[in-house]
Amino acid sequence: MNFTVRKGKVEDVETVLQLIIELAIFENEPNAVEITIEDLKKDGFGKVPKFNFFVAEEDQEIIGLAFFYERYSTWKGRILHLEDLIVTKSKRKSGVGKALYAEVLKYAYKNDYNRVAWEVLDWNRNAIQFYENSGAKVLKEWNVAQMDKENLATFVKNN
Amino acid sequence: MNFTVRKGKVEDVETVLQLIIELAIFENEPNAVEITIEDLKKDGFGKVPKFNFFVAEEDQEIIGLAFFYERYSTWKGRILHLEDLIVTKSKRKSGVGKALYAEVLKYAYKNDYNRVAWEVLDWNRNAIQFYENSGAKVLKEWNVAQMDKENLATFVKNN
Repeated sequence: MNFTVRKGKVEDVETVLQLIIELAIFENEPNAVEITIEDLKKDGFGKVPKFNFFVAEEDQEIIGLAFFYERYSTWKGRILHLEDLIVTKSKRKSGVGKALYAEVLKYAYKNDYNRVAWEVLDWNRNAIQFYENSGAKVLKEWNVAQMDKENLATFVKNN
Repeated sequence: MNFTVRKGKVEDVETVLQLIIELAIFENEPNAVEITIEDLKKDGFGKVPKFNFFVAEEDQEIIGLAFFYERYSTWKGRILHLEDLIVTKSKRKSGVGKALYAEVLKYAYKNDYNRVAWEVLDWNRNAIQFYENSGAKVLKEWNVAQMDKENLATFVKNN
């Protein structure tokens, strides 16, 4: 396979959204994606971009995405968060995911981040194995907690 | 108990670091804190602050901290991440944690965030119960993955 990895551009966001939806379907959450092309344009390409991404391309077609942004750990300081690593289904197991992942890690190293963090589904054994083999730790004792917009509104009304 | 909650100021960061260390000890990671007072000053109070925090005060003494920043979900867009919620040991179970938590949720609601997210240790049953009672979901199937600076350097060297 002959693909390249490059920095994302504003023209890519339509295809980026397609990949995001593809991943949501894989994660059994097909209806969870509420973000729009306009959000991605505005938030990713404004004065202070809220995220960054790399794409993998084959024959001028985007086949993979690594989507990331800065976070702040009270233990380590500036860290990089890898929000999504996606390869379109027909192109998996061809090294595209590994190339995108490596590009993010190189970016983190070059920009002196103190850690790279992400989240992985515990049933996604292939992904966990891949991450552990690369030197990452999967912390099974930490759970992700979330309050969605609707419950946030309810909480604020009652408190 | 008579306490107030207010926005954090640059003069607070020394006490903030003490609370961060206190939490790290509680979480069995006393040596994990590498951040310095200078990091907190520079990163929290520059042109584009990398985080925000509220403190709880009793008799002009800081007894609690809520430390948060913006993240970006590819499903929901702008979300708020609650990195730390800390109440100093002698002041726990007095409603300080709940007041700080409520302040963060109100801030998220007012600033139109699409979700509030955080992480919780699976053995911290009291915290999980508290969060679930407030309307949050604790997602047990998601694991946190991390690559630290040392392993990042090793990976980059070998790839």
